[in-house]
Amino acid sequence: MSRLWNFSAGPAALPQPVLERAQRELLDWQGCGASVMELSHRGKLFTGLARQAEADLRELLAIPEHYAVLFLQGGATQHFAQIPMNLAAEGASADYVVTGHWGEKAASEAAPYVKVNLAASSKGESYRRVPPRETWQLDERAAYVHYTPNETIHGVEFHDIPDVGDVPLVADMSSDILSGPIDVSKFGLIYAGAQKNIGPSGLVILIIRRDLLERASRPMARIFRYADHAANDSMLNTPNTWGWYLAGLTFEWLKEQGGLAAMRERNAAKATLLYGAIDGSGGFYRNPIELASRSRMNVPFTLHDSALDADFLKESEAAGLLALKGHKALGGMRASIYNAVPLEAVQALVAFMQDFAKRHG
Amino acid sequence: MSRLWNFSAGPAALPQPVLERAQRELLDWQGCGASVMELSHRGKLFTGLARQAEADLRELLAIPEHYAVLFLQGGATQHFAQIPMNLAAEGASADYVVTGHWGEKAASEAAPYVKVNLAASSKGESYRRVPPRETWQLDERAAYVHYTPNETIHGVEFHDIPDVGDVPLVADMSSDILSGPIDVSKFGLIYAGAQKNIGPSGLVILIIRRDLLERASRPMARIFRYADHAANDSMLNTPNTWGWYLAGLTFEWLKEQGGLAAMRERNAAKATLLYGAIDGSGGFYRNPIELASRSRMNVPFTLHDSALDADFLKESEAAGLLALKGHKALGGMRASIYNAVPLEAVQALVAFMQDFAKRHG
Repeated sequence: MSRLWNFSAGPAALPQPVLERAQRELLDWQGCGASVMELSHRGKLFTGLARQAEADLRELLAIPEHYAVLFLQGGATQHFAQIPMNLAAEGASADYVVTGHWGEKAASEAAPYVKVNLAASSKGESYRRVPPRETWQLDERAAYVHYTPNETIHGVEFHDIPDVGDVPLVADMSSDILSGPIDVSKFGLIYAGAQKNIGPSGLVILIIRRDLLERASRPMARIFRYADHAANDSMLNTPNTWGWYLAGLTFEWLKEQGGLAAMRERNAAKATLLYGAIDGSGGFYRNPIELASRSRMNVPFTLHDSALDADFLKESEAAGLLALKGHKALGGMRASIYNAVPLEAVQALVAFMQDFAKRHG
Repeated sequence: MSRLWNFSAGPAALPQPVLERAQRELLDWQGCGASVMELSHRGKLFTGLARQAEADLRELLAIPEHYAVLFLQGGATQHFAQIPMNLAAEGASADYVVTGHWGEKAASEAAPYVKVNLAASSKGESYRRVPPRETWQLDERAAYVHYTPNETIHGVEFHDIPDVGDVPLVADMSSDILSGPIDVSKFGLIYAGAQKNIGPSGLVILIIRRDLLERASRPMARIFRYADHAANDSMLNTPNTWGWYLAGLTFEWLKEQGGLAAMRERNAAKATLLYGAIDGSGGFYRNPIELASRSRMNVPFTLHDSALDADFLKESEAAGLLALKGHKALGGMRASIYNAVPLEAVQALVAFMQDFAKRHG
């Protein structure tokens, strides 16, 4: 066994104790004589697990009773399309605030189902910051306002929940859900692909204010309708049972760590350490994002000379630091430091970066 | 470790060697320092695994080059809706041949997207058989003909591929894919939820003749368009990487077993043994399906006195035989005997059934 420090943007590192437990019980879950993957999703054993996972998530995020919690499939990308199908009547419009690649994609996948109003975008500034709230062109008749609290590729994060009045606020929290406490009651809908801060890929968690479940009516199959999923406890059809199980183990682990307030502290410490190393490198490393909009989860950075990139990647991997290559849209490097990445991993990365800079500076 | 014999209809038993290998390499996949669940789907390690799984599936089913193979999400149920979205122009009709619960459901989820023509149904006969081909009311202008080669709940199976002329034949093979060789070239589209004969839930395999990829044009998000998935090697967004991995291990295992011809023999032997025990019980056990339409994968049966059902379930579980309870729509019992259920499991079930009948006859 030689586990390395994994900075993958997603599918991303999972907590070591979660993986160890999943390994132990892979062939025989809780003495039932079968793997958790081999159980009917409608049997008592699995529904008990499923309900416990939901209860733990509700506790961690303090989700109010008037919100439904759904365990779905399709990745955030599918829900880019399903959200307007469910929340917008035909012919309605929705506001999109775009601060990076994923917000752009959310708007483009929504376009067949809703009139997309680009209420704000920082594309013209290469997504270097969250556009100031006073510049947003919101429409009070919009079906909803969509935004991406943390942009995984560009490394831009909102540090406050924007006030959008009475229009339901919809957030793609794929890369920052569970990184700290949030006030769920400020949102109409929160959704997240699991593969960054929750569990394996192929699972989506969606939290929706119940009054929005019956919002739009347009012809569509039941399988696309959130109201039907809610009425069937996310078992309208066979869910991703392995994903649900691992998400449940992650929620338990988060509770053992002290919950989301504790995670917020740890994530702040990790981000502070890494940005400190970048900013303190005398220009050897650079992060392009405005200070107030920097992501605590995804830290893109470039080397002062991109001719060194290949060496950086080769040497970092040899030093046991995985998946630091930046997204192809930006080049350079990116370290994703989600909940499951411990402070020691960031310390090891910073030590490597400093040594590399010394040797190549 | 006490693994029991698992007759679950789905999520269902997985091959023991597949689970053991997944357990061994759960924390460190092929010495890469991370779990297979923690790898980027776009990295060389995972794309290598993904391509190998596809190649093995192509070899097992002898899939011709002019078919695309997709690894998707959403369960068969989502594709009940996505298939008409992709194969039928707006206003077009499609023929549905319904031989059980899942065919009914396929037709109802399709209805928002295509005019459903119920070309044949055995519902009036309680789904006791496949309706004779000469009674089908097919429309040669139909966008496609949909049928369900094996009905998981009712235990009804087609033993030949129906001839539907030049109209593309679409088959939901969720519960019999890989149970024996098939002639893929007879189909326009084959799809299957993984959780019966392939791997864990949350993965769908879809095999589509490439000329059908551009069939219909209607406004929809890219994520729903099979052509976009095919053009992106099923990585339009993050796939279910764990499901893909386990499917790949299952394909390897099937090749080691001698491929699908060998599986057909084994499955025939298992089904013959179990139906023999039912038919030879002097009426203590009954299966309602016409002989020529009996499923080799899902064997529903009733006890002559339903007052004995509770005892049968309790005693069978105590004897190490799991998940024999029938679907609530039919009551009684059901034994699902997919590829991963060995002959020894069926022998143990038959021995229990004979003993139970002796004690309660």
